[in-house]
Amino acid sequence: MVDILHRVGMKDASPDEVYAALTTIDGLSRWWTVETTGTPEVGGTVSFGFGTDGFDMLVREQVPGKRVLWEVVEGPPEWIGTTVRWDLAQADGYTIVLFGHEGWREPVDFMAHCSTKWATFLMSLKQLVETGAGSPAPDDVRISDWH
Amino acid sequence: MVDILHRVGMKDASPDEVYAALTTIDGLSRWWTVETTGTPEVGGTVSFGFGTDGFDMLVREQVPGKRVLWEVVEGPPEWIGTTVRWDLAQADGYTIVLFGHEGWREPVDFMAHCSTKWATFLMSLKQLVETGAGSPAPDDVRISDWH
Repeated sequence: MVDILHRVGMKDASPDEVYAALTTIDGLSRWWTVETTGTPEVGGTVSFGFGTDGFDMLVREQVPGKRVLWEVVEGPPEWIGTTVRWDLAQADGYTIVLFGHEGWREPVDFMAHCSTKWATFLMSLKQLVETGAGSPAPDDVRISDWH
Repeated sequence: MVDILHRVGMKDASPDEVYAALTTIDGLSRWWTVETTGTPEVGGTVSFGFGTDGFDMLVREQVPGKRVLWEVVEGPPEWIGTTVRWDLAQADGYTIVLFGHEGWREPVDFMAHCSTKWATFLMSLKQLVETGAGSPAPDDVRISDWH
């Protein structure tokens, strides 16, 4: 099993603000993809669309201001069964996001692509929380031929 | 052992252009840090400074247009002995960079930070090659309280 890990800090933002961006359709659609639908509650499923592609996440844990855990139930074969974890902490005027997309079976090139792509979406989340405007798909940062 | 992996594509750039940005002091200083000195040849050492911090890389492999491999010989304790790998390939009008910072002993928060930070520097490398201007330190993208 191999994991993608990231750490980003949101300046002058509270954990509750970041948590809201991870647990509401409005928040999620402002930094990841405008095509976000579903029920962001424990036991519910949230669907994230990217044109003809997309992912469905089963919400496994939500602890206000602290933690969100999703399990991928639909999407590319490499993603099925992996988990996406968001742990929030506070440090020096920042809310820290410790992110993990964990449980990949192999360190394939697609995982390397997703690692870079997650970093750009985490920067989009940071910009949303700090400035009020993120860069969700379809206006996300293009990083390669794989988009 | 745990690894940081990334994949970025440089549009309308040749592998030789990307290779030059990884194997010359001038190139390296235009996307990673302006404080770059040393001898970017196999067996040589290149020093990358970031104010009071920095890394020394022993160049272990350089295959023109194909591959660069460094070993970290000075820097933060977590980095010593790890390797940084750059594999170049071509696809659909892009030069693809497959990047690995490999051999971390533990998946510590500092590794998560470095994973995100590498992504922003890879985007700086992409911008340098595609537009002629990167964002090297000290004008690099700030991602958190850890810079």
